[in-house]
Parts: sequence; C-alpha cells; structure tokens
Amino acid sequence: MTQKLVAGIEPPYYTAVFTSVRPESPEGYAETSVRMQELVREIPGFLGYESARTPGGIGITVGYFRDLESLESWARHPEHRAAKEYGREHWYESYSVHIGKVERSYGYARD
Amino acid sequence: MTQKLVAGIEPPYYTAVFTSVRPESPEGYAETSVRMQELVREIPGFLGYESARTPGGIGITVGYFRDLESLESWARHPEHRAAKEYGREHWYESYSVHIGKVERSYGYARD
Repeated sequence: MTQKLVAGIEPPYYTAVFTSVRPESPEGYAETSVRMQELVREIPGFLGYESARTPGGIGITVGYFRDLESLESWARHPEHRAAKEYGREHWYESYSVHIGKVERSYGYARD
Repeated sequence: MTQKLVAGIEPPYYTAVFTSVRPESPEGYAETSVRMQELVREIPGFLGYESARTPGGIGITVGYFRDLESLESWARHPEHRAAKEYGREHWYESYSVHIGKVERSYGYARD
C-alpha cells in the first residue's frame, strides 16, 4: 500500500479514471492485478497510478499518462485487453472508464 | 454507501479527481463531509460523484460536472473554500486535485 500520491506532473497530461463494483477478492484477481502493474510500467509515457477501494463499496483507480498515445497504447496492450475481457466475464458487476485531459492540477503536502 | 457508479453522461464533461492521505476519522470530518455533499448537489451542472478509501491507504473522490463553469462555481463556493482550508490545517497530510475534460467514456454493467 502506497501512501504517496501522484503529484507534481506538469499539465497537460491524461487521466484514465476506472471505477468499479466487484466482489472483495475474486479468484485470480490479485495475480492479474500484480501483472498489470508490472506491464503498465513498461508503457512509455505512463506516469503513475493510484487506487482505492472502500470495503463493501466501490473501487476507483486513476492512471496518469503523458499523452493520449501512451494511454491508448496501454488500452490496446494485448495482455491488458485479455485481462479486461476476463474481468468483465468473471469479476466485475459494473465499471466505468472516463478518459480526461488535465489542464490544471494542484496539491498540498504537509511538511 | 452507494454501489451505483456514475455512468452514461454524454461527453464532453469535466472531472475533478481529488486524492488524499488523512487519518481514518479525524474530528469534525464526517459532519463536514455530509454538509459538502448537500451543498454540491445545489450546484447547477453538478452530475454526481464517487468516493473510495482503502483502510490505511489513500482516498479518491471523483466529482463530475457538466462544464468548467459549474466545476469552478463549486471550487469557489464560500463554505466549500472554508472547509478546504480547515481540512488542510487539520485533516490532510497531503492531497492532489486534477481537473480534467472528458472527451471519451464507456462502461459495462452486468444484466
């Protein structure tokens, strides 16, 4: 678990907001999740991600990308596509994806 | 706790992604959170929000707005601004805000 936020990226950049409803720990999920984290780090232009899930509630993952090309090369990655298809069939009750271009960001960190 | 995702909004629209690190239940937080949820619903162009927090981890809230004007009128709301200032001083170890324009979205829901 990281307590470190993705911060300090110079706009413009892109975010993929992935929200989902699924059972707590479905079979095969954890392994696939680790594998996807390995793979996405190999994508040029991938800047980081954050993930949170309320027990019994929804999950939100935000991926940060330098540009639309890098985001789309992740979306099109064959192993990622296969995982998404498997997840749709076996894990997720529902999910939404919102692709956004960030023109403004700011933050705060206590000293 | 809602299990219902924000979905089906026609692009373009705007998202405010708020990620944060804070103690689990700081004093005064719950009341202020409820009050902010009431207030934001009064903002014309507010389309919904989702929130998730991993116990011991980070929190992510995504607010959806019709346009930049509606998002900014929420950002400038006096009571919201006061709450943000209070939160910075008393609750949050760190946070980031990413304002994005969504041009593409899609989703899935099991029948």
